[in-house]
Amino acid sequence: MDALVLGEHTLTSRLLLGSGGATSPDALRAAVAASGTQVVTVSMRRTGGSVANGLTQELLDLPVELLPNTSGCRTAREAVLVAELARESLGTTWVKVEVVPDERTLLPDVVELLEAAETLADKGFDVLPYTTDDPLVARRLQDVGCVAVMPLGSPIGSGLGIRNPHAISLLRESVDVPVILDAGIGTASDAALAMELGCDAVLLASAVTRASHPEVMARAMRAAVEAGRLARLAGRIPRRHLAQASSPADGVMGT
Amino acid sequence: MDALVLGEHTLTSRLLLGSGGATSPDALRAAVAASGTQVVTVSMRRTGGSVANGLTQELLDLPVELLPNTSGCRTAREAVLVAELARESLGTTWVKVEVVPDERTLLPDVVELLEAAETLADKGFDVLPYTTDDPLVARRLQDVGCVAVMPLGSPIGSGLGIRNPHAISLLRESVDVPVILDAGIGTASDAALAMELGCDAVLLASAVTRASHPEVMARAMRAAVEAGRLARLAGRIPRRHLAQASSPADGVMGT
Amino acid sequence: MDALVLGEHTLTSRLLLGSGGATSPDALRAAVAASGTQVVTVSMRRTGGSVANGLTQELLDLPVELLPNTSGCRTAREAVLVAELARESLGTTWVKVEVVPDERTLLPDVVELLEAAETLADKGFDVLPYTTDDPLVARRLQDVGCVAVMPLGSPIGSGLGIRNPHAISLLRESVDVPVILDAGIGTASDAALAMELGCDAVLLASAVTRASHPEVMARAMRAAVEAGRLARLAGRIPRRHLAQASSPADGVMGT
Amino acid sequence: MDALVLGEHTLTSRLLLGSGGATSPDALRAAVAASGTQVVTVSMRRTGGSVANGLTQELLDLPVELLPNTSGCRTAREAVLVAELARESLGTTWVKVEVVPDERTLLPDVVELLEAAETLADKGFDVLPYTTDDPLVARRLQDVGCVAVMPLGSPIGSGLGIRNPHAISLLRESVDVPVILDAGIGTASDAALAMELGCDAVLLASAVTRASHPEVMARAMRAAVEAGRLARLAGRIPRRHLAQASSPADGVMGT
Repeated sequence: MDALVLGEHTLTSRLLLGSGGATSPDALRAAVAASGTQVVTVSMRRTGGSVANGLTQELLDLPVELLPNTSGCRTAREAVLVAELARESLGTTWVKVEVVPDERTLLPDVVELLEAAETLADKGFDVLPYTTDDPLVARRLQDVGCVAVMPLGSPIGSGLGIRNPHAISLLRESVDVPVILDAGIGTASDAALAMELGCDAVLLASAVTRASHPEVMARAMRAAVEAGRLARLAGRIPRRHLAQASSPADGVMGT
Repeated sequence: MDALVLGEHTLTSRLLLGSGGATSPDALRAAVAASGTQVVTVSMRRTGGSVANGLTQELLDLPVELLPNTSGCRTAREAVLVAELARESLGTTWVKVEVVPDERTLLPDVVELLEAAETLADKGFDVLPYTTDDPLVARRLQDVGCVAVMPLGSPIGSGLGIRNPHAISLLRESVDVPVILDAGIGTASDAALAMELGCDAVLLASAVTRASHPEVMARAMRAAVEAGRLARLAGRIPRRHLAQASSPADGVMGT
Repeated sequence: MDALVLGEHTLTSRLLLGSGGATSPDALRAAVAASGTQVVTVSMRRTGGSVANGLTQELLDLPVELLPNTSGCRTAREAVLVAELARESLGTTWVKVEVVPDERTLLPDVVELLEAAETLADKGFDVLPYTTDDPLVARRLQDVGCVAVMPLGSPIGSGLGIRNPHAISLLRESVDVPVILDAGIGTASDAALAMELGCDAVLLASAVTRASHPEVMARAMRAAVEAGRLARLAGRIPRRHLAQASSPADGVMGT
Repeated sequence: MDALVLGEHTLTSRLLLGSGGATSPDALRAAVAASGTQVVTVSMRRTGGSVANGLTQELLDLPVELLPNTSGCRTAREAVLVAELARESLGTTWVKVEVVPDERTLLPDVVELLEAAETLADKGFDVLPYTTDDPLVARRLQDVGCVAVMPLGSPIGSGLGIRNPHAISLLRESVDVPVILDAGIGTASDAALAMELGCDAVLLASAVTRASHPEVMARAMRAAVEAGRLARLAGRIPRRHLAQASSPADGVMGT
């Protein structure tokens, strides 16, 4: 399968994993291995850039690229500060920008997000913004220099899947940068659907880390993303109101 | 993954392929190989039991088990006759029983189906009935001795996926024999969903054979069935109306 | 609006009400009045044909036609007996035939249902069978002489609405007798949808009797059935993937 | 039913009608009468404020309040200018603010929308903004002084109904001002659903004006909005996976 280019990073896996919710470092390591992911997101705010504590070291030791996020930031200003801290701490230039002022829905505030994204892109970051499924906001994010857009399927941790496939389709048609479905994925078919709608990758955390068996779900998600990607490339049959015999009398093959 | 037992047959692949709609023997062979399937269904009616013609020989040469079906039969009597013809011709004792009197919807006639299934089970066949998503009919089919039940997701060739996941769930809870989702699958996420709902396998034809790139879709379906099966086993997170942070401040891991 | 003919009965209201779940005779009376219904179903099994007790007298005093049902019957034989009892007790010749052996799903057993329906039609009843959303079973019910078919939207009392609108559409296209959506309705939009799919009427009980305010919900359902019926007749606009300006520059009217 | 207050206007009808797409003044008049609406939206841009031409006079003669919109505006600046023109021409202080730069999706640009809404609210307008289903944007619109918010169900004229009921629910819970579902309604059950989700009113145009029989659909929509409103107030039954008998043996009433 062709590679996914996110700024300076080129990925062959199209599944990105969040580390939140993991019940232990071992569980996270096992899930990461089973998922085949090349990227794990890490929250800068709470680690404070310190690499002294064990958990952070565990993350640093994972055989993946770390993608810092601005989880917990409620304003553009906070997100910019956290992103700069991440660049200093981790030596990376990419950042997943989250600006989430509302604890109840954990939905992104697109106004603050746009401001943060523009500022960070101007500062040379490879910006990956966590956004809504609004196609016009996605295009604005592209226009201010984001290297991808990360629309939600449904609220973080809700497990509701993709509530509005139509919006994701419209969004996909509205931008040229990669689209990474982020948030809301609950199970494998959700991830497959994301790819079938034209997303270039899927980012998820709770669906794996909080599953009864995280490692098994990580394998499921790996297969689901591949399945959805292949199905998109394969060109599905159209939907029809009525039936169509798969074994027509006049078919090329008689069975 | 554990094996799927269908009467005398034990399968490790949980994807069964129909041969209908294939545009050439080579295309079918490639799709079969890519799908990893161990079973291909063949229509007895149209081949008439003759193995003299090339197309049937192509099927006979596939490195899979052939599962004869009674496609084209409109009554129980016809289905029983075709099943017996299949047993003589192919030397197999399993049969996918289809009784489909209505060309427009290609839906099974459950009254005739139940009669055919009972008769064939009494004659020693391993009966796999193509049925509706009615849980009580499925239990009746089990009670007359079917080795599995094959409910539809939506009409044959419609590509509408699983129109009633709730009914498939109820059906799954209503029988002990394996459940094979048959008909209606359009794309990979449909197949994954079938497995997540508790189906033991998926049978499809048009979704692969009529896709723009059948071999690619066959790979997609293989991955999707595996993804859905794993996701079912992994125990998905619950659905929630509101968000739940994947990186809670009080989480076990701080990221 | 044109009338709905069910055997010997001609109705102008297209909402039928079940009495089950009503918390008091007064609540039922108020709901019946608010709904505008002309028909209330009554369970013969439990009343035993006795009109001596107050509750049954309450029902007999309602300003509506009573439609006896065979609720609680698990076999065709039971249903036939109860129907005959109803004819003697109430002097009516119509009957809603329910054959429901499974307490968990309360789904109809279509095999026993078909037998009961045929027997009762032969005995001169106006048979209204509670059935699944299977179009071929519906046609069989029509063929044995039923004056209407009553497919479910989802299991009784589940409030899940119409789980498979596609099946209801196919069923509607498959029979000529009136189609009355029965079971599963949870709220007003479900009832409107039933009518938009081409159903001729809606029968519901719990959605009204168990609502927080039954009389208000009865008014809601009355309006919803009318709304859905009118919308069907009005000819809705097609669904489009993309937008279409409602105020096009070249429109006939400039606003 | 209680009244809906939109700034200086108090309405008893909860259905607002757009005039776009009407095939003739007579058709519009008939639809307006059948709908029971008290408000019709008019596009200021195209009429240019002129009341000299016949069509505008037809609108002015309707027995309703006119609500000017800024249809066709692509920026906040344009929208503000058009709103001011409307105030001068029509002597009204309310305005439906649309900022729609993208012809393909006709989705609102929430950045420009927020700017226009704030400016107009500051100038003393009663602002009704056409927005997305983003709850945080809705709250921002409330915070800058809008008297209501008008989220879309799906793209204008698409007839796709409410693509994301979950988002509309979250939006409803996120603001205190009235919520008017605007755009995407295709048929009566869509309008009922909007009200059931907690919307205070529905605005639609194409669904009525482009229906095969606009006047009949106007009646349908009137009934649907009332049905959905009543159903919301009535308190619907919960959704259950399994069945619940409506005629339980231990029910209060024996039927």
